[in-house]
Amino acid sequence: MSQTIIVLGGDGFCGWPTSLYFSQAGYEVVIVDNLSRRKIDIELECASLTPIQPLGRRLSAWKEVSGKAITFVNLDVAVQYHKLLTLIRQYKPLAVVHFAEQRAAPYSMKSSFHKRYTVSNNINATHNILAAIAESGEDVHLVHLGTMGVYGYGTSGLAIPEGYLNVKIETGEGNMKDLEILYPANPGSVYHMTKTQDALMFYYYNKNDAIRVTDLHQGIVWGTNTEQTMLDERLINRFDYDGDYGTVLNRFLMQAAVGHPLTVHGTGGQTRAFIHIRDTVKCIRLAVEHPPARGDRVQIFNQATETYQVRDLATLVATLTGAEVRYYINPRKEDAENTLRVRNDKFLELGLEPLTLEDGLLEEVYTIARKYGERCDPDKIICTSRWSDLIPEDLQGAAVPPTD
Amino acid sequence: MSQTIIVLGGDGFCGWPTSLYFSQAGYEVVIVDNLSRRKIDIELECASLTPIQPLGRRLSAWKEVSGKAITFVNLDVAVQYHKLLTLIRQYKPLAVVHFAEQRAAPYSMKSSFHKRYTVSNNINATHNILAAIAESGEDVHLVHLGTMGVYGYGTSGLAIPEGYLNVKIETGEGNMKDLEILYPANPGSVYHMTKTQDALMFYYYNKNDAIRVTDLHQGIVWGTNTEQTMLDERLINRFDYDGDYGTVLNRFLMQAAVGHPLTVHGTGGQTRAFIHIRDTVKCIRLAVEHPPARGDRVQIFNQATETYQVRDLATLVATLTGAEVRYYINPRKEDAENTLRVRNDKFLELGLEPLTLEDGLLEEVYTIARKYGERCDPDKIICTSRWSDLIPEDLQGAAVPPTD
Repeated sequence: MSQTIIVLGGDGFCGWPTSLYFSQAGYEVVIVDNLSRRKIDIELECASLTPIQPLGRRLSAWKEVSGKAITFVNLDVAVQYHKLLTLIRQYKPLAVVHFAEQRAAPYSMKSSFHKRYTVSNNINATHNILAAIAESGEDVHLVHLGTMGVYGYGTSGLAIPEGYLNVKIETGEGNMKDLEILYPANPGSVYHMTKTQDALMFYYYNKNDAIRVTDLHQGIVWGTNTEQTMLDERLINRFDYDGDYGTVLNRFLMQAAVGHPLTVHGTGGQTRAFIHIRDTVKCIRLAVEHPPARGDRVQIFNQATETYQVRDLATLVATLTGAEVRYYINPRKEDAENTLRVRNDKFLELGLEPLTLEDGLLEEVYTIARKYGERCDPDKIICTSRWSDLIPEDLQGAAVPPTD
Repeated sequence: MSQTIIVLGGDGFCGWPTSLYFSQAGYEVVIVDNLSRRKIDIELECASLTPIQPLGRRLSAWKEVSGKAITFVNLDVAVQYHKLLTLIRQYKPLAVVHFAEQRAAPYSMKSSFHKRYTVSNNINATHNILAAIAESGEDVHLVHLGTMGVYGYGTSGLAIPEGYLNVKIETGEGNMKDLEILYPANPGSVYHMTKTQDALMFYYYNKNDAIRVTDLHQGIVWGTNTEQTMLDERLINRFDYDGDYGTVLNRFLMQAAVGHPLTVHGTGGQTRAFIHIRDTVKCIRLAVEHPPARGDRVQIFNQATETYQVRDLATLVATLTGAEVRYYINPRKEDAENTLRVRNDKFLELGLEPLTLEDGLLEEVYTIARKYGERCDPDKIICTSRWSDLIPEDLQGAAVPPTD
């Protein structure tokens, strides 16, 4: 059995630590990346807070530190189909781990250009991978990084199951029939929409070509480094704090570090699911090492370990740092308040022991936000994407009094 | 209120008679087309059985016959976003009717190239239209030609509702909650998959930007001409009989005309929904003239008027023509037998009086299949696309004895 893992998007925030984790564990790792995330840094005139190194330097540092070589192939998965097919035929990988999508909801909403790029890139990338695996005839397990956002936030007080929902339908005359369906999609941005479209492609190619697929519905990833990226500063992982790519937590940390109030959108009553990057890489390995059987349906795991309301997260950061909290008009179209209960039994059963925000956040404050704080451009922290013209422009970014 | 209708794909099999129908009814019609279907004829080395004229000649004939001008804009909706946006801003149309997708399931399964073209073309076309309507700020009603195939054939003995399904979910302790969801997607080909992905884009842009959308889940269209296309032979509509674009009915008609047995795939127990092209154009006008209100959810109509099992259709054609029926291995992955009951109450309530196969088929035999039969290339009638490598190549096209 091949021990090669192809990591698509292996230069990115999740892809890089995942590649090192598999390499460390003895797998042969092939990183495929078109460096698009670094090019978007140039477009946005912003950069990772942490001083990430060019990929070539990262890889030679890894070789030096671990003695292990990682192969890099620069290719655009959404465009260069034949090169991708050739790679799969050449390596016959055990698994392809697919991070090769534009991953920021605010970036996907900046303009029609950004909406169109996100759709074309994400859909064609995922479809090319599926078509290439089918055409290769190899029995490759595809592990895809999806998002909790496919479920839609705030649609239900129910615990969100892992991908599938049991429903009953009336068949007439009061008779009921049981049906298990893909959880009904309710995306909250163009980015999230592409992930719900991905799910249909996995469903179809799994049904038609018996491709083995694991789809990981991931929460918001926090934390920066893993055991491997901490071995040498040249291996350091990205930390995005800007309004497009920075998660709410990272933006709070940076605001605290530069002495700006923490900007909460709306009431802060939005509940989000979280996971530490160290748990992300563990989950991906667990997924790779526990594939569905050939012929089984798409396997779906919820990859999140805890949930927080945004205002409670702000309070947590404020407590650790002494920052103040301020409330702003929400640029997103979403419910002001929602609850979120996420089932994640499958990873817990496979032995995951999650790292919690309560336990790990202080490390982020000191080792990342304060250490590299002077590299921050404070003008970039605020989110300027509006979800819709239906939200008046003059309300954008306006401060509002807290509602609770 | 503008009376302009932009017809995307207005040179195609459904688009052309629809354009004439609206023009005749007094609407200002703008046809947008990149002539891709004619280019695919060149690729497949096949052509419409009927002698369709170049679009310019069609339009001048229409002007001559009706006194009405139709504007033509040659543009690729999936690629030329800004030109599309400019058109919408210029015409501020009452409605955009969207036929601009690759529409053949067998073509979408021919090879990875064809799968990838279908996905990229269909998804980017639909998304560009939605993004352009949102960016324009105009309140344009989008009417989209979808397919009954999004429901998936044979998944249920239930009557298929119009787009949405009422389900109950258990909320714990035996409590049930009612939920209305988009009908769970179960596509049967890459082509059908793109239509299920379209549905998610309609859902999202309707929710986020309040775009008014009607999605028509159409059955297999039969018949060739409408009242308008019969006014002059230069206005004649396409008739596809090849294994990729020809519907099962058209291929039966051609086989009968050239003296070949009717080729039924599998047991012929597959049930399909049908509609005549004259009813298609009426339905589209009904949809345009009955838009959902601004802020309403996506409106979904089933656009089909009767259902037939394929073997019964073969019998019908055999009875009219004296042809014999022969059974072949099915290249599609689908249930051998399925029932299909389709709700189409909405169009019936709006006054549609359907034309049935029983009443209209003889006209097709005489005015199309026999009249133009000598233009047929019999080698092109058989479907050569295999749905999956899991179907052995050597069984492809093999004759099998009837199973009933």
